[in-house]
Amino acid sequence: MKTPLLTLLCFIAASASAASLQSPDGAFLLEYQTDSEGVLTYKLGYKGEPVVDQSRLGFELRIEGEQHALNSGFQIVEVIENEFDETWQTVWGEETEIRNHYRERLVRLRQEGSGIELDLRFRLSDDGLGFRYEFPEQSNLRHFVVTDELSEFAMTGDHTAFWIPGDYDTQEYDYTESRLSAIAELFDSAYTENASQTAFSKTGVQTALMLKTDSGLYINLHEAALIDYPAMHLNLNPETLVFESWLTPNAVGDKAYLQAPAQTPWRTIIASDDARDILASRLTYNLNEPCKIEDTSWIRPMKYIGVWWEMITGKSSWAYTDAAVPIKLGETDYTQLPRSERHAANTEHVKTYIDFAAKHGFDGVLVEGWNVGWEDWFGHEKDYVFDFVTPYPDFDVAELSDYARQRDVELIMHHETSSSVRNYERHMDAAYAFMKQHGYNSVKSGYVGNILPKGEYHYSQWLVNHYQYALEKAAEYEIMVNAHEAVRPTGIARTYPNLVGNESARGTEYQAFGGSKVNHVTVLPFTRLIGGPMDYTPGIFEMDMSKLNPENQSHVNSTIANQLALYVVFYSPLHMAADLPENYDRFLDAFQFIKDVPLEWEKSVYLEAEPGRFVTTARQEKGSKDWYLGSVNGSEQRSVSLKLDFLDTGERYTATLYRDAADAHYLDNPQAYEIETIPVSSQSTLQLSVASGGGFAISIVADR
Amino acid sequence: MKTPLLTLLCFIAASASAASLQSPDGAFLLEYQTDSEGVLTYKLGYKGEPVVDQSRLGFELRIEGEQHALNSGFQIVEVIENEFDETWQTVWGEETEIRNHYRERLVRLRQEGSGIELDLRFRLSDDGLGFRYEFPEQSNLRHFVVTDELSEFAMTGDHTAFWIPGDYDTQEYDYTESRLSAIAELFDSAYTENASQTAFSKTGVQTALMLKTDSGLYINLHEAALIDYPAMHLNLNPETLVFESWLTPNAVGDKAYLQAPAQTPWRTIIASDDARDILASRLTYNLNEPCKIEDTSWIRPMKYIGVWWEMITGKSSWAYTDAAVPIKLGETDYTQLPRSERHAANTEHVKTYIDFAAKHGFDGVLVEGWNVGWEDWFGHEKDYVFDFVTPYPDFDVAELSDYARQRDVELIMHHETSSSVRNYERHMDAAYAFMKQHGYNSVKSGYVGNILPKGEYHYSQWLVNHYQYALEKAAEYEIMVNAHEAVRPTGIARTYPNLVGNESARGTEYQAFGGSKVNHVTVLPFTRLIGGPMDYTPGIFEMDMSKLNPENQSHVNSTIANQLALYVVFYSPLHMAADLPENYDRFLDAFQFIKDVPLEWEKSVYLEAEPGRFVTTARQEKGSKDWYLGSVNGSEQRSVSLKLDFLDTGERYTATLYRDAADAHYLDNPQAYEIETIPVSSQSTLQLSVASGGGFAISIVADR
Repeated sequence: MKTPLLTLLCFIAASASAASLQSPDGAFLLEYQTDSEGVLTYKLGYKGEPVVDQSRLGFELRIEGEQHALNSGFQIVEVIENEFDETWQTVWGEETEIRNHYRERLVRLRQEGSGIELDLRFRLSDDGLGFRYEFPEQSNLRHFVVTDELSEFAMTGDHTAFWIPGDYDTQEYDYTESRLSAIAELFDSAYTENASQTAFSKTGVQTALMLKTDSGLYINLHEAALIDYPAMHLNLNPETLVFESWLTPNAVGDKAYLQAPAQTPWRTIIASDDARDILASRLTYNLNEPCKIEDTSWIRPMKYIGVWWEMITGKSSWAYTDAAVPIKLGETDYTQLPRSERHAANTEHVKTYIDFAAKHGFDGVLVEGWNVGWEDWFGHEKDYVFDFVTPYPDFDVAELSDYARQRDVELIMHHETSSSVRNYERHMDAAYAFMKQHGYNSVKSGYVGNILPKGEYHYSQWLVNHYQYALEKAAEYEIMVNAHEAVRPTGIARTYPNLVGNESARGTEYQAFGGSKVNHVTVLPFTRLIGGPMDYTPGIFEMDMSKLNPENQSHVNSTIANQLALYVVFYSPLHMAADLPENYDRFLDAFQFIKDVPLEWEKSVYLEAEPGRFVTTARQEKGSKDWYLGSVNGSEQRSVSLKLDFLDTGERYTATLYRDAADAHYLDNPQAYEIETIPVSSQSTLQLSVASGGGFAISIVADR
Repeated sequence: MKTPLLTLLCFIAASASAASLQSPDGAFLLEYQTDSEGVLTYKLGYKGEPVVDQSRLGFELRIEGEQHALNSGFQIVEVIENEFDETWQTVWGEETEIRNHYRERLVRLRQEGSGIELDLRFRLSDDGLGFRYEFPEQSNLRHFVVTDELSEFAMTGDHTAFWIPGDYDTQEYDYTESRLSAIAELFDSAYTENASQTAFSKTGVQTALMLKTDSGLYINLHEAALIDYPAMHLNLNPETLVFESWLTPNAVGDKAYLQAPAQTPWRTIIASDDARDILASRLTYNLNEPCKIEDTSWIRPMKYIGVWWEMITGKSSWAYTDAAVPIKLGETDYTQLPRSERHAANTEHVKTYIDFAAKHGFDGVLVEGWNVGWEDWFGHEKDYVFDFVTPYPDFDVAELSDYARQRDVELIMHHETSSSVRNYERHMDAAYAFMKQHGYNSVKSGYVGNILPKGEYHYSQWLVNHYQYALEKAAEYEIMVNAHEAVRPTGIARTYPNLVGNESARGTEYQAFGGSKVNHVTVLPFTRLIGGPMDYTPGIFEMDMSKLNPENQSHVNSTIANQLALYVVFYSPLHMAADLPENYDRFLDAFQFIKDVPLEWEKSVYLEAEPGRFVTTARQEKGSKDWYLGSVNGSEQRSVSLKLDFLDTGERYTATLYRDAADAHYLDNPQAYEIETIPVSSQSTLQLSVASGGGFAISIVADR
């Protein structure tokens, strides 16, 4: 179904001009206008309530070396209206097809004096607004520098925000829930330490930003289709409560180098009076271009385990040797160095993981620390830090590839770049070719530490361009990418569905680094996951890190039932079971849910949602009548009454409930769970008690 | 012949210590000492006269995030003495073999308190001193940042210097001859405009720096073996007349990232009381590593013409179209754009160059502007600016390759990067493979404009590393490199003789951009050419640029005889005849010298030399009895009496003299030359008159 409708409205240029646009269902009202100074503003309402108050749009540019303010003197010279309604098929996702229905206004502006043309493209759908700037081909503006983007998002009150510190280099923070007016005073405590971090303002926050008004309106601010442009942050003016766009700069403070015709990413405002609608929104994907990969048959969701958690907890090491010798790739002879007993990525040990994966039906095994260079990989501004093709002497890549293939398991490649991105690009072709040669079809890449060359940031245009380059080149090799510490996703996986995962948030690893907030997983679906799936690496069953490594006193702030729920609540085509095989062997009944839960879905239903409190999601397996249900809870113990009216009427099901025991608690009793099997139907209502930091997971299998 | 001698001297650590070393011939005396504060200094004398006065050595480092001064508290813990005498074969050069004879002191230092070990390696040969810092493997110092190198070169008086402004991005300046004390006041007038330039101090100058003392001592300061380290400039303290090393920074002001064991490039001081010895010195090459390319048979000197001067003068254009459309590689369809009549790199026109090359025995034809992207290549911070493999529609690469091959001519590739170095690296493999596929064996690369990513400079460590990467990767493909706007050479061509040329100075192109100083070519052999050959592109016969392009009022400040002399005076394995074929057709008798002059030499003799005044060089053709002689003159008309006693005694020769006519003058009569053929022998003395901006060239062919 594709029904583009086109209406052309021509305005006479005037000193001031105003117009409005309604969403297809009439709930949203966009208004935009130019005032007597030619300043362009927009505002957005939802069911009669303001979402974003009057907010200015524009830029500071540098054109041919001269600064130019492109934020006033605008005349609307033409408005082109369009309606679009199309349903597209997903390669993977929370559903098999997504409807993209919007009304569009292309507002063509000309600046008096300069004659510069700038277009604003607004797309209003039933879940919210996307707008972007477009610089059409014109003689007045060819190559230019964006020194500042001046997009505003004027808040209508002192909302509650779920925010992380604005940072050019990392999103790996716990979320802080506070009034907007409290961001400045809470900033320092929220700005926890990271291997690479660059804050820019005590009122700077990152997108996707989740907000809730006192009247119960949920607002999400983010961006879509971040291509060849710096990532946008938001800086709050604490007096006016206006958020201003804050682009990530390069080493000399410039933001973006563009050539007309060009456009910015979309700035997105998703809003609803029901928090579940925020999770159901597909605005971010819809604003991205359709899939550019013709044959997507090689893109397959994967459930995997990995030689990873044992290093994260400090039980094992990535490095082959503890010898304090200088490591120089191509010069160091590792066979002459004493091997550390803690080196986990060794052939025999990896075989035990492959065996475990084969036994339990996992698709893949990730192995980190397999390649030379880990002895001094981090924090040294080391340019030639890895070559991505040379295994340590105790890792037999050919033998392991064969071993895995014979057991119908795939090895997952690991490319830690140490943020030496030039070095990665220099080795990329060889590294990808090496992967294909040895049967690896997916790669986890990493960008730990400060970017080389220094002065560039993880989220600057130069790096955004790099991640895209790595992704597109991977597609040429038919390789799936799961990029950690890269820029947070903005729906690009619609266009390049080989981007099967990203980290770009505080993942499970932080549970071994001191722990994350109990309610962290109830916030992520409203923030980080808006742009695309996260390789969150759930499935930790042993919460006491000292059991793995006596020197690690960290505690995983979650119950086992909560961990299980994440496989449903956090949609991802790539899900890890992150704990050690021996910990799963201790809880094989609970582990069964991880084995059973599918990765591909027919559709998804959001049963309960409140950021920071709880999220309950049900998903129907692709091509099946079976459903899987997950619920994660924040710190408040709660009781849930859950109607299963999403099930097919007339169908009978057997539900297996994995839930917190009555005395479960994330802190002192996290492993207390109960498993119960009961018949259910669409008429059923389940009564469940959920622990602090707890959750539940349910498989609902249609009777055959 | 290889006679390494080893002596080990052990010192007892003391509060102060001093020692000295003589060059093999006894002319040079190096003294070094630590004072009571443990400050390390050196001084250098020549025949009893001071060359460099007491000068400090050391660093400012950042180790594990902490600044650390490594410039005092030194104790000499060990001194290792060595003598080395070896003669090595050149792949190309001013002679077939070079003697490398030096005495060496490795002074091993330990800093009190920090325990950091630092070694100073001094090599003293009969032409001067090289020293470098070495950071040995040690537990106290593994990865570290050089925030400053503190090497001093204390001048002993207010010498005359031939200098260009210190700059992180370009060496394309006319030389200024002045007293050291006058540098500051002359700096602004010397700092002429360039597409990319970054001065750092009004007393900053570049190396190779040529100096002359009032007593007639010639001193040259430069560096050798610049690998993975920033290029060094010199900053003069105008009060003390001490030059301090000034390394090129990166975007955040750091200079170098090193990992012990590591070493700096060599800091070189060549000195003599005879200016000719400066030209005869091979210290710079000798301080580089021996050749690392096993099979060098594919490295062949080349004499070439090119589709180039017509663009430089503005007669023709690099760009295919003048249409003001946005050029986006992969999107722009050039076949739909109007072709400019001025686009020189078209198949038919290139064929006329190939015909001319074949007719006159040239090895190669360079073609610039053959590939898509030239319409907006420069000054726009455009990342994806060229792809290096897509020809314009009017350039048939397969047809021209065939056409050239059939005529025993090679096409020379051109890779302008526009300083978008990441883009070049991304395309490098494909670009080199494309070359080999089409029979190109050499590439002229270019780095015009500011470096991308912004903040890096042409001479920073990151870029030095890039040029080396491009060079070594070219060697893998058996490709010769002639890199323009890259860092100035430091003798690396000994190690990688596929580096057959560099620009890195003000080349002939500036004669079409307003003209260069008349005596420019008498300075370059003492400065730029110390580090390696220059693709100077001599051979301009038509000095009036308006004859080529009415809008170009520039004048080439040189006589034709001077242009001919450059083929001998400027040693290069790669020499262009840069003028248009039609201009050579007007002066075929003079052109004969360019056709005759060889590129490979048995040996070289420096007959006369005075920086800024004149240079006269004689070279014997490799494997032949024939000699070629060139002399370039500055602005003062002069008479020369030239003894040919370098010729074989008993041998009879026929000399063909190409010299300025009596009324020749670079400005108003540059094309006045005379050609005379006379018999000569080693007993002969030639009397020659040389015009202002003139010169002479002589072929001396043994009678057979």
